[in-house]
Amino acid sequence: MRATREALVTAALELFSEEGLDAPSLDAICDRAGYTRGAFYVHFPDRDALLVAVMEKVGEAFLSSVFEQFRSPPATTTSKSALILAAQRFVAAVEAGAYPLMPSAKARGARSGHERAPQIRPHQLLDACARSPVVRERYRALVEASIDQVAQLAWEDQSRAVIHTGLDPKQVGTMLLAVVIGAQTMVELGVPVDPGALARTVLLALVPNGAGDEPV
Amino acid sequence: MRATREALVTAALELFSEEGLDAPSLDAICDRAGYTRGAFYVHFPDRDALLVAVMEKVGEAFLSSVFEQFRSPPATTTSKSALILAAQRFVAAVEAGAYPLMPSAKARGARSGHERAPQIRPHQLLDACARSPVVRERYRALVEASIDQVAQLAWEDQSRAVIHTGLDPKQVGTMLLAVVIGAQTMVELGVPVDPGALARTVLLALVPNGAGDEPV
Repeated sequence: MRATREALVTAALELFSEEGLDAPSLDAICDRAGYTRGAFYVHFPDRDALLVAVMEKVGEAFLSSVFEQFRSPPATTTSKSALILAAQRFVAAVEAGAYPLMPSAKARGARSGHERAPQIRPHQLLDACARSPVVRERYRALVEASIDQVAQLAWEDQSRAVIHTGLDPKQVGTMLLAVVIGAQTMVELGVPVDPGALARTVLLALVPNGAGDEPV
Repeated sequence: MRATREALVTAALELFSEEGLDAPSLDAICDRAGYTRGAFYVHFPDRDALLVAVMEKVGEAFLSSVFEQFRSPPATTTSKSALILAAQRFVAAVEAGAYPLMPSAKARGARSGHERAPQIRPHQLLDACARSPVVRERYRALVEASIDQVAQLAWEDQSRAVIHTGLDPKQVGTMLLAVVIGAQTMVELGVPVDPGALARTVLLALVPNGAGDEPV
């Protein structure tokens, strides 16, 4: 049961990445997974529910890759800014093509035999959100969870006086998520964005001492 | 000639605002303007060209309302952060509903006789950009021009040591535009965003002294 669901989610992720969110038919997804439509409807009420499952899989894997270290006892991060560590991981993930709703380059290459440019664009995800309340709700929840996790890191940095203590941690989280989402949109439009330089500037503003010592 | 073009742009702006970017037919726009399709094609090759004209009208009016003071000799702004002044105007414009692609509340009320919630959403604009290279190119140019204008303000603030002199002005511009575009998207998703609190946090990070003295 669980294997079928996983296979459908994996197939959908691959096809969304190769062809965009809207192009792959449900039949194409089932074909690639090696299951019938009947098997599909055992696991998902509709195509949007499958998209939500894909978002959860990718979003949670991505968030845990950025934030995982901070769930362990914070002893290991005492001397460093938690925000800088998270930003370094985030920029590395962007540069590796693992953001926002992409399988890894390795996973793409393994199936299709060649590298493809990422095909899922922010406007497609926002389109899906405009069309489907369940998709929008899940995406909104992922954004809010990310804001809360960044706010927690900002609070930890403040408790060690690594960033300005006058900043509202929640607003720092909102600001960093807005930078990420806005930068994605600008890249889609063709505005030149250098993720590393942008991250350095944001952190130099927030973490004046830490960022100078530790370039992102 | 010019009056006809203006009437078509004004009618399109009203209908886009009332019904969204995609809903109003070309006939409906011509009807509201009081001209025929024949007159339309004297001025515009197609519907996307009309959308570009609307973006130019709204975008340039909006940018000049945010940046106009800074085009006059900078003597008047010597004692204040240029970034803070621009951010104050920007937040005021957002709170008045004049951003991103909206006629003023007054213009909406005058025609339709009642207030309407803004109907043009970021995903619609990005959709139009994905569909039409000419729309994308114009939107990209507006974003890049805004980045350059913010970078100029950051440079002026740095020349008076109002913000950290170690920040790259171009990256400050990119960061602030990303915050604006990302916050818009978050609002569309239903993530709670307080534009005033967000602006205060961004400016407190960039302008540690100025923002403390002058809340946005």
